[in-house]
Amino acid sequence: MFNISNIFGKSISKNILPVQQLKMVKYLKQEEAINIDQELFNVYKFSVDQLMELAGLSCATAIQKCFPPKSHQRVLVLCGPGNNGGDGLVCARHMNLFGYLTEVYYPVRTDKLLYSNLVHQCETSGVPVSDSLADNISTYDLIVDALFGFSFKPPVRAKFLPVMNALKTVDKPICSIDVPSGWSIEGVPDSDGINPELLISLTAPKECAKSFKGKYHYLGGRFVPKELEEKYQLELPAYPGAECCVKL
Amino acid sequence: MFNISNIFGKSISKNILPVQQLKMVKYLKQEEAINIDQELFNVYKFSVDQLMELAGLSCATAIQKCFPPKSHQRVLVLCGPGNNGGDGLVCARHMNLFGYLTEVYYPVRTDKLLYSNLVHQCETSGVPVSDSLADNISTYDLIVDALFGFSFKPPVRAKFLPVMNALKTVDKPICSIDVPSGWSIEGVPDSDGINPELLISLTAPKECAKSFKGKYHYLGGRFVPKELEEKYQLELPAYPGAECCVKL
Repeated sequence: MFNISNIFGKSISKNILPVQQLKMVKYLKQEEAINIDQELFNVYKFSVDQLMELAGLSCATAIQKCFPPKSHQRVLVLCGPGNNGGDGLVCARHMNLFGYLTEVYYPVRTDKLLYSNLVHQCETSGVPVSDSLADNISTYDLIVDALFGFSFKPPVRAKFLPVMNALKTVDKPICSIDVPSGWSIEGVPDSDGINPELLISLTAPKECAKSFKGKYHYLGGRFVPKELEEKYQLELPAYPGAECCVKL
Repeated sequence: MFNISNIFGKSISKNILPVQQLKMVKYLKQEEAINIDQELFNVYKFSVDQLMELAGLSCATAIQKCFPPKSHQRVLVLCGPGNNGGDGLVCARHMNLFGYLTEVYYPVRTDKLLYSNLVHQCETSGVPVSDSLADNISTYDLIVDALFGFSFKPPVRAKFLPVMNALKTVDKPICSIDVPSGWSIEGVPDSDGINPELLISLTAPKECAKSFKGKYHYLGGRFVPKELEEKYQLELPAYPGAECCVKL
């Protein structure tokens, strides 16, 4: 994609800086991911509304690049009880604007105003939000997995076992937001874990993303201040132009 | 750009639907713009944080398309006291992420938490925010005008006369967010009004945009629910793919 001499000038030797290193990005442990998230809110003073909007938009955009609505119009977005589910609600609304027919499964809701507003925004935009799961989710063209994010610790609680089982047997592509649901954030996934075709890592990939074997891996959430990137040595790749996501 | 028979089928006669009508978009009066804004917050339950983030991002994106950082690196963003200034603060932060060297002039601040957070986000992202105006703003490569938006009513108040005068004489391109500052929302601009090269209309163009003579007119703020678009007969153009702005 690029030539080393174009970026660093002719004097750089390939022995000092192998091409592979240019594309290296740091994979976060769970505690690092939690700390970065906290700093964004507490030190940099972003609101959840702001970052969730940007995160959800970047997920919808990556999905549109990999599975455009022309070939994958009917979409089911599975939303979990936490912030990953919130990203899913935002993603569902933007996908609807992009021309998808989007529905949301959202079985466990929080009392927070932001979340009831996100649901309301979906419902008034033509995105039905339901707490009951379709009998056969393979009738959709595409599944967005926004069940569990970087704060997930196994085991999956009982309420979510049916949807996890549906995900494991669905024969349509799965797009996972930030983390393939059910996978430990660190370490290797169980042999019967889900296998998404698209993973959109947010802010920076988590350690488990090293085991991702699907077709497309994107990075989204283009809002990390330079200082924070440097503090955690994230080595984020350059986003092209004004794009809100980048292929890894 | 497109062929009428591709969109509507061969049976549509050009006499019934002239090509020009396909690109028609409604121009809003001031009261309509205010009402649409209120509905987005009160009926559709969006937060200012959410919509300002999307609006500012779409402005930064349109600017990046017309005046990329390679040719226009040093940018001054002029932020007014209201929501238009808030859009400018968000735009400045995203432009910084896109590779611009961005500075903000923000002389009259509000007490609202969102606004002090937006300033903090800029300052901690390497975007200085100042309440004093540079002696000669022509030393920048590009000026972003986020002084007054759709709720502006003349005359310009005394505090903003110096910056308005600077805008009238600057010899670098001006990018106006939503409305060229100083222009009445309805009717024809004064003969000594500013002449932006780029106008990014948000949600839908305002009536004064009919008098816009600059090179680039974009629409941003891709968040209008279909039902609201239909209620106000906005006739918005189709945004391409997952783009957050569209050239008019």
